Amino acid sequence: MTVLFVFAAALFCPITYSTYTFETKYIQVPLSHFSNIGNTTFKLRYLVNKSYHVKGGPVFLYTGNEGDVNMFAQNSGFIFELATEFNALVVFAEHRYYGQSMPFGNKSYSLENIRYLSTAQALSDYVYLIEELRRIYLATVISLDTYPFIAFGGSYGGMLAAWLRMKYPNSVLGAIASSAPIWLFDDLTPCETFYGITSDVFGHYGTEHCNKTIQLSWEVIRNVTKTDKGKAFVSATWKLCDHLKTAADVDKLIDWLSNIYVNLAMINYPYPTDFLVALPAYPVKIFCDKLNSYKSQNSLALVEALGIALQVYTNFTGETKCHNMNITSRDLGEYAWDYQACTELVMPMCSTEKDMFETAPWEFKKYSDDCFRKFGVHSARPDWVILEYGGKNLRYFSNIVFSNGLMDPWSSGGVLKNVSCTVLAVNITDGAHHIDLRGNHPADTNYVLEARKFHRNAIKKWLNII
Amino acid sequence: MTVLFVFAAALFCPITYSTYTFETKYIQVPLSHFSNIGNTTFKLRYLVNKSYHVKGGPVFLYTGNEGDVNMFAQNSGFIFELATEFNALVVFAEHRYYGQSMPFGNKSYSLENIRYLSTAQALSDYVYLIEELRRIYLATVISLDTYPFIAFGGSYGGMLAAWLRMKYPNSVLGAIASSAPIWLFDDLTPCETFYGITSDVFGHYGTEHCNKTIQLSWEVIRNVTKTDKGKAFVSATWKLCDHLKTAADVDKLIDWLSNIYVNLAMINYPYPTDFLVALPAYPVKIFCDKLNSYKSQNSLALVEALGIALQVYTNFTGETKCHNMNITSRDLGEYAWDYQACTELVMPMCSTEKDMFETAPWEFKKYSDDCFRKFGVHSARPDWVILEYGGKNLRYFSNIVFSNGLMDPWSSGGVLKNVSCTVLAVNITDGAHHIDLRGNHPADTNYVLEARKFHRNAIKKWLNII
Repeated sequence: MTVLFVFAAALFCPITYSTYTFETKYIQVPLSHFSNIGNTTFKLRYLVNKSYHVKGGPVFLYTGNEGDVNMFAQNSGFIFELATEFNALVVFAEHRYYGQSMPFGNKSYSLENIRYLSTAQALSDYVYLIEELRRIYLATVISLDTYPFIAFGGSYGGMLAAWLRMKYPNSVLGAIASSAPIWLFDDLTPCETFYGITSDVFGHYGTEHCNKTIQLSWEVIRNVTKTDKGKAFVSATWKLCDHLKTAADVDKLIDWLSNIYVNLAMINYPYPTDFLVALPAYPVKIFCDKLNSYKSQNSLALVEALGIALQVYTNFTGETKCHNMNITSRDLGEYAWDYQACTELVMPMCSTEKDMFETAPWEFKKYSDDCFRKFGVHSARPDWVILEYGGKNLRYFSNIVFSNGLMDPWSSGGVLKNVSCTVLAVNITDGAHHIDLRGNHPADTNYVLEARKFHRNAIKKWLNII
Repeated sequence: MTVLFVFAAALFCPITYSTYTFETKYIQVPLSHFSNIGNTTFKLRYLVNKSYHVKGGPVFLYTGNEGDVNMFAQNSGFIFELATEFNALVVFAEHRYYGQSMPFGNKSYSLENIRYLSTAQALSDYVYLIEELRRIYLATVISLDTYPFIAFGGSYGGMLAAWLRMKYPNSVLGAIASSAPIWLFDDLTPCETFYGITSDVFGHYGTEHCNKTIQLSWEVIRNVTKTDKGKAFVSATWKLCDHLKTAADVDKLIDWLSNIYVNLAMINYPYPTDFLVALPAYPVKIFCDKLNSYKSQNSLALVEALGIALQVYTNFTGETKCHNMNITSRDLGEYAWDYQACTELVMPMCSTEKDMFETAPWEFKKYSDDCFRKFGVHSARPDWVILEYGGKNLRYFSNIVFSNGLMDPWSSGGVLKNVSCTVLAVNITDGAHHIDLRGNHPADTNYVLEARKFHRNAIKKWLNII
């Protein structure tokens, strides 16, 4: 099983957004903040909602992730709910090289042009944006030195929010970093933790323990697909757009399945959502319920049951004609993310025989070679993130809340304990990936509600209003 | 008067170093830390002295300036004295694009190649070096996460020491930033302060107030040099290598004089030194004593007196055959510094009628245009330093001591008051440029001794040994 590139692997589904409204704006930012390549700039997109803003209120800035910024703006309702309470200006910033923020238009992903895609450059873009926002919206309000910006982010956006506060404490007063796996690098976290948690999530559901069935399934799939007849059977039963023909196709199928399991665990929200794809409430539970309908020891029956269960993820709307396993190459954002995962954000992952996945060691050399094949660059600096952002030692930083859903695979690299009086952790025992940033919902559990209260209080403290 | 490029203007005098001994080493560091230009690295030089190091002792790392690292290693004896006391490893790191740390050898200063010269890149080099030093010297000693490095630096090196602690608090436990004008950017400090302090230093000496005589001298020089005969007179009297021929030559002479006055004030140490050039004790006093021998109202007599006084700076050794006004173009380090002053480190300076200098407003456009003429790049981002390093607000940082000699022109941009319990200021009332980093000397005043004690105590506190 290839464990490469799963973080953004699910960003393949274009969605129409409408729930939260924004003004779309652009700022010219330097292409290269740290080397002098002339005065080249490009247009970075950001979204502004002024409707809750009252003079003197803070600015809530979402530090955008690896994808179209709208996707995050429409799935972070909590920030809007807070904004009404805090009279805040709401801004969602798009990350360079994603969405519409392409430094070189549709040529941005050439080896030559993509080189300015890095976390430090993205942070510096946000620092520029903060200055611009001060000029546009706040110049007449209050001293520019002290005007409070609060950074928000989920997942990679959460890392950026935390790092923004760590590196630029004068730009943002504090950061809410939700499901930010800032410790999923180098040797900071054992490589098996990520898939271990994923397995545990599936272990929670089904009388037969869903994860045991999945663990069994790999050998079954490998065996069945050894023959052409078996490949044809799986292709037809699972309605694959491209039928399985080679052993490599079978490897791809295994990767595709593995990614789906990770994504199901990530977004195992207690109500229907349309974030990565359209999904029912508790999709892992639904998946496992369907899979548990498989009772016999018959291999083909297991394949059939899996095919049905998978549709929870692949075809919840019932509109999918066939299933495309190339999801990792269809999304533009994914390509750029994979580049980041190769150049800077190398997250060692492996699975062991304890997990429901096929066992796979972490092989850095193989990972780096794959990067070279794909991007023409090796992963030269797997310890870069630690050098740049300080690794496990956060005691010199302040005003950050790290929140994690403990049933989210990405919590494996999260900060799960308080570091100091001002670098705090809040855990959502039954929570999935950055669920706390989502808007209020009747199905929210107490754990999520408590986390949101925690955020609210932290921000009040930062703003000196309690 | 052109007030451009004075910071490093004095680094023109090659000196043989011998007092402190080092092992010269090199580390391969990435050329570009923040954009992915492939795996290009280059050799950064550093100097190591292990003789005081005892297992468990800290590392004292000098973050090198705009020049050959030896120059700073030989003029920072205080660090060695501390090292004996603290059992420390002493390391002096050379700044990229200076000394022998040339990424592209003798082609490093082409417009294409010099682009990777920036403060952020230099800091990242030092972070890499710290990791390397941990591996080489400390791997068996103690947890790598916690091993204490203390950064030291004077002048620009002091800025880097402070910024290193601010941006990479996990790499260095604390920073002694001596005479670091981190607030001499954009609108943080009134532009006239720098020349104001320089004038005051000259005002301290001589019964006639030396600075008044200098203030008078500009008009005299301008008048005398209006004629060819006058130009010839000044050229001969002052033993200029290139005789004055044009009005532009006269402007250059004025700049040269101004730079010498600044340098004299900077290094007005209470004992003979050989830092920028060979100088007697209190060179400003000696200069002023000589100038005060001028008593008449005769213009030519004033020119003659100035010519004699100037030799304190230009010819203390008596070996100078003629005086070269092109000092700003003879030193390699100076070229790179000017580039930094154009691209990132824009320090607005001006002089008013209150100062002993010719009056000159701060004209950013002119400055930027001069940069374009010299380097092909405009000063696009005069506020960069503030955005990147946080401007006046230092309350979120910790473990930094800013020391300043109050008779040093560069103290104009220094941190002169305590910011918090851990970001502290110590002022040396009668001190010149980073005198506290120099080795102990019988002529040291109590103010300097107190500052060194202050540093010592701060480091003890950081190391938890008091």
